[in-house]
Amino acid sequence: MEDLSRDRGISDFFLARSVAVIGASPNPDKLGHALLANLLGGGFRGRVYPVNPKEAQILGVKVYPTIQDIPDQLDLTVVAIPARMVAESLRAAVGKGARAAIVISGGFREAGRLDLEDELKALSAETGLRIVGPNCQGINYLPNRLCASWPLLTVQGPIAVISQSGTVAATLGQWASEEGFGVSGLVSLGNQLDVCGSDLLEFFASDPNTGAIALYLEGARDGPWFIRTVRRVVCTKPLVVLKSGSTVGGQRAASSHTRSLAGKDEIFDGLCRQLGIFRAGNIEALYDSAKAMATLAPRMGRRLMVVTSSGGSGILAVDQAEKLGLELPRLPTEVVVRLQTAEIPPNATLSNPLDLTVATAPQFQNALDILQAYDTADFFLLIFGDPIPGAAEVARKVREASGARVAVAYLGGGEVEKAERLKMHVLGIPVFPTPERAVQAIHAASWAATFRVQNRIGNADSTVPTEKEGIH
Amino acid sequence: MEDLSRDRGISDFFLARSVAVIGASPNPDKLGHALLANLLGGGFRGRVYPVNPKEAQILGVKVYPTIQDIPDQLDLTVVAIPARMVAESLRAAVGKGARAAIVISGGFREAGRLDLEDELKALSAETGLRIVGPNCQGINYLPNRLCASWPLLTVQGPIAVISQSGTVAATLGQWASEEGFGVSGLVSLGNQLDVCGSDLLEFFASDPNTGAIALYLEGARDGPWFIRTVRRVVCTKPLVVLKSGSTVGGQRAASSHTRSLAGKDEIFDGLCRQLGIFRAGNIEALYDSAKAMATLAPRMGRRLMVVTSSGGSGILAVDQAEKLGLELPRLPTEVVVRLQTAEIPPNATLSNPLDLTVATAPQFQNALDILQAYDTADFFLLIFGDPIPGAAEVARKVREASGARVAVAYLGGGEVEKAERLKMHVLGIPVFPTPERAVQAIHAASWAATFRVQNRIGNADSTVPTEKEGIH
Repeated sequence: MEDLSRDRGISDFFLARSVAVIGASPNPDKLGHALLANLLGGGFRGRVYPVNPKEAQILGVKVYPTIQDIPDQLDLTVVAIPARMVAESLRAAVGKGARAAIVISGGFREAGRLDLEDELKALSAETGLRIVGPNCQGINYLPNRLCASWPLLTVQGPIAVISQSGTVAATLGQWASEEGFGVSGLVSLGNQLDVCGSDLLEFFASDPNTGAIALYLEGARDGPWFIRTVRRVVCTKPLVVLKSGSTVGGQRAASSHTRSLAGKDEIFDGLCRQLGIFRAGNIEALYDSAKAMATLAPRMGRRLMVVTSSGGSGILAVDQAEKLGLELPRLPTEVVVRLQTAEIPPNATLSNPLDLTVATAPQFQNALDILQAYDTADFFLLIFGDPIPGAAEVARKVREASGARVAVAYLGGGEVEKAERLKMHVLGIPVFPTPERAVQAIHAASWAATFRVQNRIGNADSTVPTEKEGIH
Repeated sequence: MEDLSRDRGISDFFLARSVAVIGASPNPDKLGHALLANLLGGGFRGRVYPVNPKEAQILGVKVYPTIQDIPDQLDLTVVAIPARMVAESLRAAVGKGARAAIVISGGFREAGRLDLEDELKALSAETGLRIVGPNCQGINYLPNRLCASWPLLTVQGPIAVISQSGTVAATLGQWASEEGFGVSGLVSLGNQLDVCGSDLLEFFASDPNTGAIALYLEGARDGPWFIRTVRRVVCTKPLVVLKSGSTVGGQRAASSHTRSLAGKDEIFDGLCRQLGIFRAGNIEALYDSAKAMATLAPRMGRRLMVVTSSGGSGILAVDQAEKLGLELPRLPTEVVVRLQTAEIPPNATLSNPLDLTVATAPQFQNALDILQAYDTADFFLLIFGDPIPGAAEVARKVREASGARVAVAYLGGGEVEKAERLKMHVLGIPVFPTPERAVQAIHAASWAATFRVQNRIGNADSTVPTEKEGIH
């Protein structure tokens, strides 16, 4: 059994008020430079203490020759120095009160230096210091404006990312930043000598700033613990996983990367279905699914209504929906009759997908007002296939009227598209670059919601607890 | 049999020296405004004549009240006025010498007005005027800086896009523009009353500015003609197709959109394999495949060497490669021995994928110099999973040394990534946003090359002609 008291220290990483950067560097090519620059540039709400015996000042901030010289109590330490020097630094940080450490440095287990990793493990056990890493890319937590990682992320949003690959985490963070959707937090796990994926799942499950969790996994270290954790997590937060090593060659590569035992892919697949983890097929689906899960209402139905200004995109959406088992209900006769006299383009095809042809935002609105007056669908997909100013306002109204059951695909709209997409993301409406990706994401959100509803209603005596029994 | 003399008029669209815009508008919400603005903003190499009886000047350009007033011989006419007025305008344009017309206006067959469409058909037959559309989004041809479409495209590159959906075409054009890859030309087919996909395939197959063709299809009007055309086209240019209506629901929607008969999906699938058309599964795969086909050497082999600074991305690449039947050969012992003493990160995993861990551009270069000294692979995939300045220069050298057998996945690198990606695209090196998409694209290029090589070598007596017998 996991030691539940272990969970307590995890929030120290995210809520830290003072951070030391050991190995802060004036050289822009060094990670110790990027880490300091991003802590400062991200607008961290606490105090930052760079440590480097050779420098007096970096990026305009006073540098301390040793940890001992820092005139403050430390919460968190970020370490980017050679592996053999890490343990000593961490011990000094503990002396200054640090309860959490992020070890960016590589050169431990992944490099055959089990001895160095064991040293940190012993130190953690002895002092209670919680350690993320080593051999990792750090942590972001936007509510605290903490960017102890790279690249710099400054846009807060509702998805948390936990990843065994620093690059996969950074990629999701960068996408979310660029399109104004944002993340709540982001953790690169590295070698997981102490803090592991399950710890972080627990944290984000109870984090009010997180609406859905995206997890990139090469293999779970402690299977039973992971399973127990997931059972609790999915009661409060939808969870999507990208698991690599799904082929024999991939498993071999995974074992070299983080020494994870990947296990048989079919077994993991079955486990996901049983536990209510939505399994993504690639990095983009991991991101898209989390976006939809964090923003769409947890609705069980599978009926999709597509309203589009691009006929071709509508067909591609239908193809994808049918492949994934979503239904496109026919329009009730009454709706068709009302659409026939509505102010929408005269050449519109009055079916599902409702192809408005080249249409303005008010024409979209007119059609949607009619569709929403009837129980036509569980989810709406709006496809804007042109520069359509005002598209965001249309989506906002549909979102309000439907109770967050709308997703958008916006494509081929140039600068107008970019501006409208940004507005929609600020409003919490998920926008996808293609109809296929939008439908896949709606499918993911619907699947996760259906799992939750079915397991609460259908299995009152099952091991899945109700929300109140969830973790706290 | 198709009338081969028909082909001749097609180049008039692309090489026009004088263009009239009928329905040019001062109102930025009108298509007649966007068309004029983009012809001017794209830097069209010829002369532009806006026509509008109510305006004297639009966007600083003199406007002519009627076509008859234009003091010049016309090559091309772009029309964005109500459907019922189109025929008369086109007749006037023919009077001014026009041999080609793009009818943007909708309201013809797709709106049940077969009579209006028949009128244009008769006019085309009578006068020899070639017509693209109606109900289309126009044409781009970058070598002539012709943007009679939207959004504005100004970046020339090696892929041609032909599409039954204006939005799908615009989307590919926009992606190619934004990431500095570019397109050679782009055509939205609309109702295909005269000029059809086969005509354009012929044009781009013999266009020296086009390296690969991306086609979005809902259904071919004249199957036998399409098949004969494709047989010739694939001898000179790789061809990738996204065909919607691959499900029953999608077919129903396709029939509403362009009245295309979609046909059974399995039959189309078999046809693609037989003809050498690579079939893409979604809009992004259509774009990615064309990018790889236009830039990678037409090499038959399936051996892939992956060099990465991101372990996780390397595993995802392996998974994807194995799913698509690409091989990742083991490193020869001699290569491993040389890598052991090379100046690369000490924790690198010396296998395929070669995981360099956090690495600089020179370290990538050192590893690649060794790998390229041996016949290790048919294609190289470089995965840059960090801000790595100088990545483009590494890729350039690998491209030169290998004879264009390198593709790149660049992710999680922030602003550095964007700058390096742009450089690589200018150099003709295809860059993809994820390892999965990069591997899929390499697979597409390898598949197309293999088809060409096998059909020339293996079937000397087959109906597939050699390059010299191709169309001209």
